[in-house]
Amino acid sequence: MKIRTELIHFSEALQLECGETLDSFDLMIESYGELNESKSNAILVCHAFSGNHHVAGENKELGIGWWDQIVGPKKAIDTDKYYVVCCNNLGGCAGSSGPTSINKKTGKVFGKDFPQVSVSDWVNSQKILMDKLEISSWHFVVGGSLGGMQALQWSIAYPNHIKKAGIFAAAAKSSTQNIAMNEVARESIRKDKNFYDGDYYDKNVTPKSGLKTARMLGHITYLSEELMDSRFGRKFQDEDSKVDEDVNFEVENYLQYKGSKFSELFDANTYILMTKAMDEYDAGNSKGLDQALRNIKSELLIIGFYSDWLYPYQRGKEIQIAAMNNNIKSSFLVFNGENGHDSFLFSSKEYSNAIEKFIES
Amino acid sequence: MKIRTELIHFSEALQLECGETLDSFDLMIESYGELNESKSNAILVCHAFSGNHHVAGENKELGIGWWDQIVGPKKAIDTDKYYVVCCNNLGGCAGSSGPTSINKKTGKVFGKDFPQVSVSDWVNSQKILMDKLEISSWHFVVGGSLGGMQALQWSIAYPNHIKKAGIFAAAAKSSTQNIAMNEVARESIRKDKNFYDGDYYDKNVTPKSGLKTARMLGHITYLSEELMDSRFGRKFQDEDSKVDEDVNFEVENYLQYKGSKFSELFDANTYILMTKAMDEYDAGNSKGLDQALRNIKSELLIIGFYSDWLYPYQRGKEIQIAAMNNNIKSSFLVFNGENGHDSFLFSSKEYSNAIEKFIES
Repeated sequence: MKIRTELIHFSEALQLECGETLDSFDLMIESYGELNESKSNAILVCHAFSGNHHVAGENKELGIGWWDQIVGPKKAIDTDKYYVVCCNNLGGCAGSSGPTSINKKTGKVFGKDFPQVSVSDWVNSQKILMDKLEISSWHFVVGGSLGGMQALQWSIAYPNHIKKAGIFAAAAKSSTQNIAMNEVARESIRKDKNFYDGDYYDKNVTPKSGLKTARMLGHITYLSEELMDSRFGRKFQDEDSKVDEDVNFEVENYLQYKGSKFSELFDANTYILMTKAMDEYDAGNSKGLDQALRNIKSELLIIGFYSDWLYPYQRGKEIQIAAMNNNIKSSFLVFNGENGHDSFLFSSKEYSNAIEKFIES
Repeated sequence: MKIRTELIHFSEALQLECGETLDSFDLMIESYGELNESKSNAILVCHAFSGNHHVAGENKELGIGWWDQIVGPKKAIDTDKYYVVCCNNLGGCAGSSGPTSINKKTGKVFGKDFPQVSVSDWVNSQKILMDKLEISSWHFVVGGSLGGMQALQWSIAYPNHIKKAGIFAAAAKSSTQNIAMNEVARESIRKDKNFYDGDYYDKNVTPKSGLKTARMLGHITYLSEELMDSRFGRKFQDEDSKVDEDVNFEVENYLQYKGSKFSELFDANTYILMTKAMDEYDAGNSKGLDQALRNIKSELLIIGFYSDWLYPYQRGKEIQIAAMNNNIKSSFLVFNGENGHDSFLFSSKEYSNAIEKFIES
């Protein structure tokens, strides 16, 4: 599989939903496979909140791509047939313009002053990328979780530039509980003594412990209760392999380990910014979802998972109902998925088959 | 209603489950109503993790008691008929011996060196209290959440000293997810810069921000998703009444407010200790629940709530099944309860009626 990773600079201004403007911006993109002559085989993959542009294959820095089970040669999204593109979203910390980038106006790192981007802003920046790639229509725009919100927004915002959309483990808006959980995570970051109100970059420290706590909480919401129970139960951690002397149970040790690892890699301002974008997205806005979906021309594949309690499958059903009310061609499937919200990341025979058949249909 | 609040000193040693011994200890108790001549009308109420001895009525310091809707004259637990006692549990921070008490051996505050107490230890200390009160059998031992675990443990540990037990919104053991959530809360406390590894008492600071984050998370688990949604939805907070400029949604503001308020009142070491006691309780232990319940003589009233996702009603069903397997007289009821896990705190016609009828039967 041919993998290209490149940083693309866009010198055009991007007007953001929050009212601010980015005078120019960079997008880190990765692509797989070859664009055909008629440019009709392009697929845009949108990443979830802590994801990045590295979808498939392996590289030294980022390891195996986050959707390697689904994207690749002869996989559900077949890179032998399709040209697949993913970009690190604006505000991210994997190469695209974000809090860790230099603000040309000040010559300093943006930090907390990077503007609050939104799902719509991401879709607009991806449209600019699309124009640069001289693609006039995506065959398929797809993502899970926050990525699914982008796929939905693509269908709404650019109905003439997208043929099919895949909205997996997602919702048309975050629930009150989603927002509440994200606020606890943000609070733990903001109150870290090394956060310095978001200006920690020139202090040679990062708010790792806040980020760690935030990720520990995140992990609980990504996994299902059943999976946690079957994997860890109430087993005690071996004394030898404890990451912290205060923990007794294996599940505590696992969360400590996962949280620590994440806190070494991810940027705290990006964490806050990405979760806020997720909280604030509401496809229906004041109009209601039926009205918002009215102009969609793309065909929708909506997938939920029974074990997902972060974005329960009923959220997918709401999108499906609004689609039906608008005579939009759509399919809604619910799979078992043993991995809770994270189920969208893992291949299963029926899940992969559904994606493949939908793309090919 | 006659309310007596008193601090009782016990000069006998209490051997704890963790292997340590408390040479002496204090229990802060509150009681309501009058003990009858035959001492057959005594009810022990056990509090949940952040509760205290102040169950009913109002006082200046602690406000309205946490179970005032259920306990009082002509209420479900009728203080005109019954003598009701509650003690602040060992390890607490409302008067009983705990991390904030003076360790007589060192002359300093116990802090993090207060021994790890357990549900069994609490029940054993309540048995010593019972002996002091010269009561030979409780007519009823009852509690919700961690209080329900104590009621269950009373039935197991002292079958000849309890006639009836009320186990509400509780479980025979915490789930993996319960433990995981508590670990995130503890992590946020331990990593507060003012925690000083539990030795913050002589530093004129308390780890308020960690405690606040912990409580914010707790609150999400106490409420149901439906309640949060109907109460707050995706409404924005008025600019004028924001407790923090970083919050936008009402639900964020609510959690910030609740968390802050709690962090002013509660002790961080107690938070850690109480959640650990909750995590580590397992009525069945290695034997399994059927075997553990074998010698129970009391009649059980087990109540769960559909909207409780912290201790879902299925956990109550597990106790009921084990009780049935042992021919223990028991009733298992599930009520709607709109308040999630907190539903056990609120009176409703059917809930109150069930408690009253069970006590009287």
